[in-house]
Amino acid sequence: MGIQPRKRLRDLGVQIGYLPTGAQNSICDVAGVRVGHCTIFEGSGSLLVGKGPIRSGVTVVQPHSGDLWSDRCTAGFFSLNGCGVVTGSDWINECGALEGPIALTNSHSVGDVGRALTRIMHEQYPEIGTTDDAYLPVVGECDDSPLNDLNGFHVQEQHVRGAMQNASSASLAEGALGAGTGMTCYGFKGGIGTASRRVELQGNSYTVGVLVNTNHGQTHQLLIDGVPVGRTLARELETKKNKEGSIVLLIASDAPFNQRQLERLSRRACMGLARTGSVAGNGSGDFALSFSTGRRVPRQGESHCIKLPELHNDHINKFFEAAAEAAEEAILNSIFVADTVVGRDNNTAHGLPVERCLEILRDHGRIKPPI
Amino acid sequence: MGIQPRKRLRDLGVQIGYLPTGAQNSICDVAGVRVGHCTIFEGSGSLLVGKGPIRSGVTVVQPHSGDLWSDRCTAGFFSLNGCGVVTGSDWINECGALEGPIALTNSHSVGDVGRALTRIMHEQYPEIGTTDDAYLPVVGECDDSPLNDLNGFHVQEQHVRGAMQNASSASLAEGALGAGTGMTCYGFKGGIGTASRRVELQGNSYTVGVLVNTNHGQTHQLLIDGVPVGRTLARELETKKNKEGSIVLLIASDAPFNQRQLERLSRRACMGLARTGSVAGNGSGDFALSFSTGRRVPRQGESHCIKLPELHNDHINKFFEAAAEAAEEAILNSIFVADTVVGRDNNTAHGLPVERCLEILRDHGRIKPPI
Amino acid sequence: MGIQPRKRLRDLGVQIGYLPTGAQNSICDVAGVRVGHCTIFEGSGSLLVGKGPIRSGVTVVQPHSGDLWSDRCTAGFFSLNGCGVVTGSDWINECGALEGPIALTNSHSVGDVGRALTRIMHEQYPEIGTTDDAYLPVVGECDDSPLNDLNGFHVQEQHVRGAMQNASSASLAEGALGAGTGMTCYGFKGGIGTASRRVELQGNSYTVGVLVNTNHGQTHQLLIDGVPVGRTLARELETKKNKEGSIVLLIASDAPFNQRQLERLSRRACMGLARTGSVAGNGSGDFALSFSTGRRVPRQGESHCIKLPELHNDHINKFFEAAAEAAEEAILNSIFVADTVVGRDNNTAHGLPVERCLEILRDHGRIKPPI
Amino acid sequence: MGIQPRKRLRDLGVQIGYLPTGAQNSICDVAGVRVGHCTIFEGSGSLLVGKGPIRSGVTVVQPHSGDLWSDRCTAGFFSLNGCGVVTGSDWINECGALEGPIALTNSHSVGDVGRALTRIMHEQYPEIGTTDDAYLPVVGECDDSPLNDLNGFHVQEQHVRGAMQNASSASLAEGALGAGTGMTCYGFKGGIGTASRRVELQGNSYTVGVLVNTNHGQTHQLLIDGVPVGRTLARELETKKNKEGSIVLLIASDAPFNQRQLERLSRRACMGLARTGSVAGNGSGDFALSFSTGRRVPRQGESHCIKLPELHNDHINKFFEAAAEAAEEAILNSIFVADTVVGRDNNTAHGLPVERCLEILRDHGRIKPPI
Repeated sequence: MGIQPRKRLRDLGVQIGYLPTGAQNSICDVAGVRVGHCTIFEGSGSLLVGKGPIRSGVTVVQPHSGDLWSDRCTAGFFSLNGCGVVTGSDWINECGALEGPIALTNSHSVGDVGRALTRIMHEQYPEIGTTDDAYLPVVGECDDSPLNDLNGFHVQEQHVRGAMQNASSASLAEGALGAGTGMTCYGFKGGIGTASRRVELQGNSYTVGVLVNTNHGQTHQLLIDGVPVGRTLARELETKKNKEGSIVLLIASDAPFNQRQLERLSRRACMGLARTGSVAGNGSGDFALSFSTGRRVPRQGESHCIKLPELHNDHINKFFEAAAEAAEEAILNSIFVADTVVGRDNNTAHGLPVERCLEILRDHGRIKPPI
Repeated sequence: MGIQPRKRLRDLGVQIGYLPTGAQNSICDVAGVRVGHCTIFEGSGSLLVGKGPIRSGVTVVQPHSGDLWSDRCTAGFFSLNGCGVVTGSDWINECGALEGPIALTNSHSVGDVGRALTRIMHEQYPEIGTTDDAYLPVVGECDDSPLNDLNGFHVQEQHVRGAMQNASSASLAEGALGAGTGMTCYGFKGGIGTASRRVELQGNSYTVGVLVNTNHGQTHQLLIDGVPVGRTLARELETKKNKEGSIVLLIASDAPFNQRQLERLSRRACMGLARTGSVAGNGSGDFALSFSTGRRVPRQGESHCIKLPELHNDHINKFFEAAAEAAEEAILNSIFVADTVVGRDNNTAHGLPVERCLEILRDHGRIKPPI
Repeated sequence: MGIQPRKRLRDLGVQIGYLPTGAQNSICDVAGVRVGHCTIFEGSGSLLVGKGPIRSGVTVVQPHSGDLWSDRCTAGFFSLNGCGVVTGSDWINECGALEGPIALTNSHSVGDVGRALTRIMHEQYPEIGTTDDAYLPVVGECDDSPLNDLNGFHVQEQHVRGAMQNASSASLAEGALGAGTGMTCYGFKGGIGTASRRVELQGNSYTVGVLVNTNHGQTHQLLIDGVPVGRTLARELETKKNKEGSIVLLIASDAPFNQRQLERLSRRACMGLARTGSVAGNGSGDFALSFSTGRRVPRQGESHCIKLPELHNDHINKFFEAAAEAAEEAILNSIFVADTVVGRDNNTAHGLPVERCLEILRDHGRIKPPI
Repeated sequence: MGIQPRKRLRDLGVQIGYLPTGAQNSICDVAGVRVGHCTIFEGSGSLLVGKGPIRSGVTVVQPHSGDLWSDRCTAGFFSLNGCGVVTGSDWINECGALEGPIALTNSHSVGDVGRALTRIMHEQYPEIGTTDDAYLPVVGECDDSPLNDLNGFHVQEQHVRGAMQNASSASLAEGALGAGTGMTCYGFKGGIGTASRRVELQGNSYTVGVLVNTNHGQTHQLLIDGVPVGRTLARELETKKNKEGSIVLLIASDAPFNQRQLERLSRRACMGLARTGSVAGNGSGDFALSFSTGRRVPRQGESHCIKLPELHNDHINKFFEAAAEAAEEAILNSIFVADTVVGRDNNTAHGLPVERCLEILRDHGRIKPPI
């Protein structure tokens, strides 16, 4: 593995589900959504707390390019297993709106990243915390301590600013970068993954995009397109139980979902997670946060009654399939693309052995013999 | 107490809160809402299961006068303490809509009343359970067994039909009737109570109406307009601990609340409950169900995208106050109006000693000396 | 299909997951759990409401053989998608205990079955609804109206009594019987299925058993051991979209789970559901209810402080895998075993084409060529 | 107001509820609980972001004096209205345990305080974030921006350390100190308040203690011992609508509550909040977090099955009353004790006009004429 760049799952001939993907098969297929990463990869060898080695970073998702504070995306959150945190989720659950960017990082940098977001938002909206409400940053975390100097608090405001400046709607970068730099998934190198699906409805084309930061699961659990590849790999590689991690799933769509529907969509993304083999382990923080760029709630209620579009529930099932499929593929993309990373104390998260996986998949009729 | 008909709290000079009431100070002030009761009051003396005495009944709330199955009110549910059941609440939580009437009855008649509602709805909508979905009746219960032959299953389809035929938007009947016939509240006779509040907003006048079936609390807990009347009465009357009961609160409004807002409104009605002294006892089924006649969700989704009105959250606080005030007053109305009922085995739920209560309230500066 | 009796999935050479099964691969492997069915299969031809044809029934799960009312199993509930009802779930969520049997039936018979359970419990515990609390029956439903005269209310008390009398710990009957008589799953005949897993822990052997009543999903969604068999079948059979149904999952274990852990276990059973292809459709009532026979909560609190065993969360992950695996296999058993049923108006739910499925599975490396 | 130190409510002759208080009428009556404050009160005049004036701080609650990371208190969380954050609450909800101190601060300092807690915990437990799990700090916030330079991020690690060093079980300090320095409640100066209640049970004496940081409500809503004092004050003082704030309620007890019971206790504390007049406004983050020092869950599960004490639900109602009473009194204490604070831009939160309040209370029969 590794000399030529690693491919995404679909480019290897494996197709998850049946719905068509968006143009980039990425969360950025949802118009307006931008993703930016800032990776911190410094030092090697023994852990010296505060010095490194550092294998971490931050990933920022910008829901749209307009005024995030005032022109709020409807949003809905689901906690499948709460061993972790997505700050701000209680307010999302209460008001049904997302009031800024979403940041992902390591477990101990939630505070610093939240503070950085608050400062950045305050620069843009000076009324925050003076004449207007305080800001509740939305930051999700996974624990990258097996590879990273987690207690060194290395992700700082400059990195958050960097990720925001890098944000692009053409971002396809996956694997060991940004918040995913130090993550481990099913015993292999994990991190950032993305995928999307299109849903056609009465002449309209909608997109559901998913971005994940994967840090969960044991090797023997891994299912690839339903094939228990992990059981074979665990036997062959004699993998040990790794530290339990987490996964954050972000789901974007341009369809006009209301809050409850987005909470429901979040659950369906977790059903895609289930299909990759996870059982949401006890020590895993498995959270899904969905937002709709197609249903905006204005911050100010000049008029007490607003008219908002809403998808009729009769038409939601295809979106449920889209969320599950895109989540499943995004997770698999994260481990197919992420290459081996050697971290603190020379702890190593090996890249998924792609060739062996493909052999197993071929044996299970998943890929036509010569790809 | 009791020769002349008992008065509602406000007619006795006690005013809960500060918001104006609707014309009738009733849930029926919400245009279109109708309430009907069917009371079963038969027999006396020793309990003979299946024979009586019967002190029970059914109360039906019709959210509007149109096609309930197809033109659904948005709805939201909250369980403050789940020792009981409101059937159908999971579906309300999932889809945010109320698809028929709401019925209240005793604990063991939930099944029969649900079946009756199903038959009645199927008569009106023959497609139910054939070409269309099955029907999920919404039935809430409280336990009237201290007075009633609960195991006699006396509430039957004819009574549900009776309550529906009696449904009227001019209904002000409160106390020991319908589902409230056998209920006990704070150690006194309880049952049905109602109240309403008006909220003015940008030239519009909205109404929040509450109907309760009260069967909860111990005497020493009772607060009337914040005055710990119950502590005095418990001492004077040497009341014993009564069986724990429940309360169902129904909140109606013509304001265009979305599902989440109605769930939030349900919580605020429970804050009104708290102000009457309840702590939602362990064995109490304390449920609140809110619906909006002003935001209807069509059953059929011919168009996948619908435009719906929604109250902006910036304007919701007055409604929160309205729900709390109306709930508090509705609960107090139920015990002020309900007269003594002697039930099975001559168990007696005494009507609240109104004159003594008024004395205590006067001593606490709540009523001008001569009323 | 069909002359010789249909086999369970494992007997056909397909093994779900990796954990060992219990002796019967059934919920009845959990010591003390008994299951009984009563099937109503009468008439044929056109629907005449009230007359039939009837394709329905009731299934009862008895958590243990002792005093269910006083010696209560700890229990935990999860609603994945709430288009349906499991009565009594709010109380289970509040007190964490299961106070009687669990019954499954069709959507419109919930009331009658709940009433029947109440009468039966009252016979056994005359204090119910007099000196003791009212009884809150636990009844879950799925909609069998495509095959059954749902509006005929054919499931009556005698059938509930029949199912209870039939209850046995040796019950392996699956498919179209009891509450599963008229159910449809992934476009094929569904109904009752069961499976179990064993978990070894520090020299102790625990069991997790699952029983399902399956009525959910569209053909194209069906995954069998991860293989998208449904996509092939949908193409070959030109299946139409069927009415959305539901699934109820019951999970039993002898391990000493606390309430929250059982709620978590319920979620993991839903992850097994996800692996069979479901996305928990909008009109599906997908509920999971778990109980522990190994952690009993006494009804009466003579002592205010009780000592109860509890599994430490460090050891729960294997149980999460067990619940997911057993749920997945139980669902698949239900459709592998259920044979074709012709119902009202000659609507037909075809038995899963097992031979074709096995071919597809063989093509995907799931079964050794000659089984 | 203000030359002689302000008194607590009870010392003024007003008694909330009927249960006896603990020795100090404080959360510190729960054996082992310690509270520490660090107050930052610097500068005056116009706001210069980053410079001040500063009216803020941090308050830390130490659940017990032992090994918080390993000997975890059972805990349960409730969000009454989620406009705010208590970080770590999802993990508390999932595992039912509290793994460290609880900190309260202003809205924009959550990140810095969380980071400080993480560093402090890592110093004490070096295995955190290396061989053991990452740490999820529990930090709750309220918005003190009307008085404080919220965007100055003035609460730093040294202040958290200061609050922890100050922590004492004899702490009775209330009002404008620690996290409460800049808070406003019902239009008056709010902040820290505390109270406790004793519950006698079968010869055992248990304590429920509450500590609040109050920043919520409008003047007209204020109820003191049920008397609508706020309506009179709002009229007399011509108060304006103040910015909506929040309240965090912490409830401690030595009774052996399980997780679900603590979640239920949290709800009852919110019922006490309701009795002070709050309706949990839209922009209010109203959270309650309860923990039991009497039921500890060990971090390590050497044995897979542990035996834990648990209060039987039959005996919980008195505790529900205790939580509601103590919460009500703690909130009122916070405003009775807090003295006027002039903050940024000379914004002023006036201390509650105690003499006028007492007059009104006397008029309502709440205090014997000469106190």
